[in-house]
Amino acid sequence: MDLRAKAERLRALHRGPAILRLPNVWDAAGARIVEKAGFPAAATTSAGIAFALGYPDGERIPRDEMLGQVRRIARVLSIPLTADLEAGYEDIEETAAGLVAAGAVGLNLEDAKDGALVDIPVAVEKIRAVRSAGGRLGVPIVINAHCDIYLLQAGDPSTRFSRTVERLEAYKAAGADCLFVPLVEDEETIARLVQTLRFPVNILATAGAPPAGRLQELGVARVSLGSGPMRAALGLMRRIAEELRDQGTYAAMLDGAIPYREVNELLG
Amino acid sequence: MDLRAKAERLRALHRGPAILRLPNVWDAAGARIVEKAGFPAAATTSAGIAFALGYPDGERIPRDEMLGQVRRIARVLSIPLTADLEAGYEDIEETAAGLVAAGAVGLNLEDAKDGALVDIPVAVEKIRAVRSAGGRLGVPIVINAHCDIYLLQAGDPSTRFSRTVERLEAYKAAGADCLFVPLVEDEETIARLVQTLRFPVNILATAGAPPAGRLQELGVARVSLGSGPMRAALGLMRRIAEELRDQGTYAAMLDGAIPYREVNELLG
Repeated sequence: MDLRAKAERLRALHRGPAILRLPNVWDAAGARIVEKAGFPAAATTSAGIAFALGYPDGERIPRDEMLGQVRRIARVLSIPLTADLEAGYEDIEETAAGLVAAGAVGLNLEDAKDGALVDIPVAVEKIRAVRSAGGRLGVPIVINAHCDIYLLQAGDPSTRFSRTVERLEAYKAAGADCLFVPLVEDEETIARLVQTLRFPVNILATAGAPPAGRLQELGVARVSLGSGPMRAALGLMRRIAEELRDQGTYAAMLDGAIPYREVNELLG
Repeated sequence: MDLRAKAERLRALHRGPAILRLPNVWDAAGARIVEKAGFPAAATTSAGIAFALGYPDGERIPRDEMLGQVRRIARVLSIPLTADLEAGYEDIEETAAGLVAAGAVGLNLEDAKDGALVDIPVAVEKIRAVRSAGGRLGVPIVINAHCDIYLLQAGDPSTRFSRTVERLEAYKAAGADCLFVPLVEDEETIARLVQTLRFPVNILATAGAPPAGRLQELGVARVSLGSGPMRAALGLMRRIAEELRDQGTYAAMLDGAIPYREVNELLG
């Protein structure tokens, strides 16, 4: 599949009967695990990549380093890859070109910066810029547009829903392919979002979120895990280290590890 | 601590009363976990870095990419870092200079290439070259010299021990600081190695290896986990992905994950 076909395939996965399930990855080996498990597409976690490369979350990692890791991940995959690129960095057209050069065909775009929402026209302009860059590059980039009002707990709670919908309608009109509302967890709000927007919606899997099957019943198009798997892996690393430090044993490391030969084959 | 002081500190840790415990890491976040857990030094796994960056093990990853990841890891650490660099790549003096430029102060050197042992003089020459490069650079690089006879199950089993000792004595004379015998697991052989060599010995933690406390009683100077933690993390990634695919739930991801805020602070 060339990149155009991969982008079209990824877009179609948001409009199929089944919810698109995306266990986000931050390195090449994890991406191959996801592909081998039969997922039709892969997605990166920007926080996970930042952590792996030594940065806190929030556009502290330079764009080149972020895209370098996206490229390493795309290189080992046959399935389409979509990348979380936080707010898209300064020059969004360059970012879109770098994304396609890295071999990815979709991106997440936040509508916040440094913990504060950006104005709607700024967010809309970014989406339009990615859409037109995709046109020039011949790759119809799949745009997953965030609205981070719930994530940031921004403004009066009683108007969160209407302000979220206002933003997402603008993003939809600007050319977004999917609308992402991180940290909305309750079924009623999720159902209202889907019914109001009548457009593909992405929900983040959190402790309070319904399982994927229930999200599908509610009409959600996509569920992603965000930085959860990376933070789970770090938790395991900590348990392994603390066991070595305190007991001198290796059980947490040995229990459930993939054999060396198998990982080698996965990347061979 | 400057790099010279870090190298001296790392060397001294091989000669202390306590065994040096090294839970090998492959990315910056994992390295910070290890540092925060109180370990006095960190070590990379070359297989883990290769996997994370999309390559099978065995010098398939270009040296620049390997050293780039070592640099990202060293950047976030205050404790000394030692890097596994497989057989050291083609030009060992350039590799040693790259290692120091990346901020690491020790390295592992295998005495095998493409699954076959190299001749003793070749392995010895590499150790001498690193030692003299360290002298020129002003950083007394800590050299952990492998003998891979047990790992490769090379040659007549009845002569493995004596051939291993012959090699390790040569590496010791050439300037190695520690002698690494991966996949030696039984207490009797480990004890005989330590008693015969009378020099710091590194044992790899495997399912059959004694726990760290017992290794210390046997006189072992260093125990490392190799690619085990990375393969454990990949096993967890697979369980998370398969659970999302089959049950649509998130338990493996949520159970034991480090909270987002805490990881951010770890790298802030």
